[in-house]
Amino acid sequence: METIRWEDGFPYILDQTELPVREVIQRIDTVERMVEAIQKLRVRGAPLIGISAAYGLALSARLHRTDPDFAERVSADAKRLAASRPTAVNLFWAIDRCMREILDTHASAGADEAARRALALAEEMKQEDLLINRRLGEFGAGLIEDGDGILTHCNAGALATAGYGTALGVIRAAHEAGKRVHVYADETRPLLQGARLTCWELLRDGIPVTLQADSMAGVLMAQGRIQKVVVGADRIAANGDTANKIGTYSVAVLAKAHGIPFYIAAPVSTIDAKIREGREIPIEFRDMQEMRAFQGIPSAPEGIDAFNPAFDVTPASLIAGIITEKGVFRFPYDFSGL
Amino acid sequence: METIRWEDGFPYILDQTELPVREVIQRIDTVERMVEAIQKLRVRGAPLIGISAAYGLALSARLHRTDPDFAERVSADAKRLAASRPTAVNLFWAIDRCMREILDTHASAGADEAARRALALAEEMKQEDLLINRRLGEFGAGLIEDGDGILTHCNAGALATAGYGTALGVIRAAHEAGKRVHVYADETRPLLQGARLTCWELLRDGIPVTLQADSMAGVLMAQGRIQKVVVGADRIAANGDTANKIGTYSVAVLAKAHGIPFYIAAPVSTIDAKIREGREIPIEFRDMQEMRAFQGIPSAPEGIDAFNPAFDVTPASLIAGIITEKGVFRFPYDFSGL
Repeated sequence: METIRWEDGFPYILDQTELPVREVIQRIDTVERMVEAIQKLRVRGAPLIGISAAYGLALSARLHRTDPDFAERVSADAKRLAASRPTAVNLFWAIDRCMREILDTHASAGADEAARRALALAEEMKQEDLLINRRLGEFGAGLIEDGDGILTHCNAGALATAGYGTALGVIRAAHEAGKRVHVYADETRPLLQGARLTCWELLRDGIPVTLQADSMAGVLMAQGRIQKVVVGADRIAANGDTANKIGTYSVAVLAKAHGIPFYIAAPVSTIDAKIREGREIPIEFRDMQEMRAFQGIPSAPEGIDAFNPAFDVTPASLIAGIITEKGVFRFPYDFSGL
Repeated sequence: METIRWEDGFPYILDQTELPVREVIQRIDTVERMVEAIQKLRVRGAPLIGISAAYGLALSARLHRTDPDFAERVSADAKRLAASRPTAVNLFWAIDRCMREILDTHASAGADEAARRALALAEEMKQEDLLINRRLGEFGAGLIEDGDGILTHCNAGALATAGYGTALGVIRAAHEAGKRVHVYADETRPLLQGARLTCWELLRDGIPVTLQADSMAGVLMAQGRIQKVVVGADRIAANGDTANKIGTYSVAVLAKAHGIPFYIAAPVSTIDAKIREGREIPIEFRDMQEMRAFQGIPSAPEGIDAFNPAFDVTPASLIAGIITEKGVFRFPYDFSGL
């Protein structure tokens, strides 16, 4: 299963809004469509959003390679991509990295070469992400014991990355190392990434998984079924405060109350050194309609006021460890050596 | 809005599975249909389940009033009704009370009179429930302050009772007393009683309400938006441990962690003196399919293992007060004077 790939001049994405019912591959033929795909969560997950933006810029560079205003055109597309979603820092990290490469190459070697480099870099970032996840997975697997019940929230899996996954990468690595694990997947309202995506990919891999409503996390912990919590991240502040899918904070508080270690798994590109603490992280609020209906079927009175932040922030003090490709960081967090 | 009424020899129910999209009134012409209505949550909420069983027995007594085996027939129907759902003790309490009346009257005055008394008792229990909710509401309103944000889970409202409600009765009474309150309604997966029912009835009453996913309770508390939590109950053990809709336990732990008082609102008929502590309360597990689809639309891979208890138990130590029609009880709970 590939979340994104380049073929014959265009990026192709696996449209995750159609899972688990249908596996639909969509050709992205304009930057606008890539922006739409990111906004509508056809591609989602902080690492994959970054890679998608990189492919979006590769597309932009290809489409504009004969345009005399190449640098302006591609820069405008970069702005559009950057405005697609506000929370995952990997998006801005990827765009900055790609734009440096594209503009430098354009200045020194012209638009054709810049377009070639843009694509090569996107492909490189995709491969790099896979390697990062593998390495991160190995570090994380060391924290998992044979027989652990592991709760996860949302999808920080192969579908959130170029493949393998961050939180699910840790679980995959533990499973591959022969540890028996059982995953408890929060369904993750409102968009049900846990039910639709995490269950789907673990089922394909033959890793035992049970689906529960987000509200059931507490009772699963009280019953002694959960030994670890591992989730992903959309942005990590310099002090370790972590923005992740809405509901993560509740899980972290519940884990603390039950004495269960709560881990974040994310590449170091998710750490935003410019953000000192969690309250500075911009949180995306999404359309209230996501809370009022599911796939078009109303589940609440029309027009009801609804709270719908896409993310929340878990304070560093609730996080037992942040698992990265450079190792496991512990509270109090200090990433200054990176 | 009436949740249940008797007309021309039959109970009529408001089918709550159709809310908020349609207001469908269903005639219940057999005891089997009342059992089905309880099992499918067409009528739901501990107090209303009890009243529905009382009307079911009134129907049974009427249908069998010329049957020579009257007592056996009605007793068999009582068993069917008692087997409909296991957790709400109000069901068994109502059935016991009705069956004593029906069998005593039958023995002393015959089947016709027993059928008349059965109906009179059901009507009386309905009126009594309304009065209980009003009284309970007044006691509870004393705990609410002007400007409070109040989080509730599931629906313990007019729709869960003969009218007015328990947890929402407390909120209604505070609102009627001129206190400005804002309700935060957990949508309450998997069956969305919060989104579908609590929002619907508060909107009709003009009480300000915001809908949130269950997983958002923690962040609402951290943001200082919640000053009180008030929920209903399906069964309260002698020590105060309380079974209520799945997810209540998570809310109680979160409230404790944020220093927010967590209240139960329920009639004393919800207290089961025979149950010493929460672990003895039988918990209903429902069909996994409820977790795999959302309003009939698949939301998880087919056949995925799912955890789906209908209730959980909140330990007494997390409960700041139990609001009843006899007053507010406080930890450590002692109901022996009732």
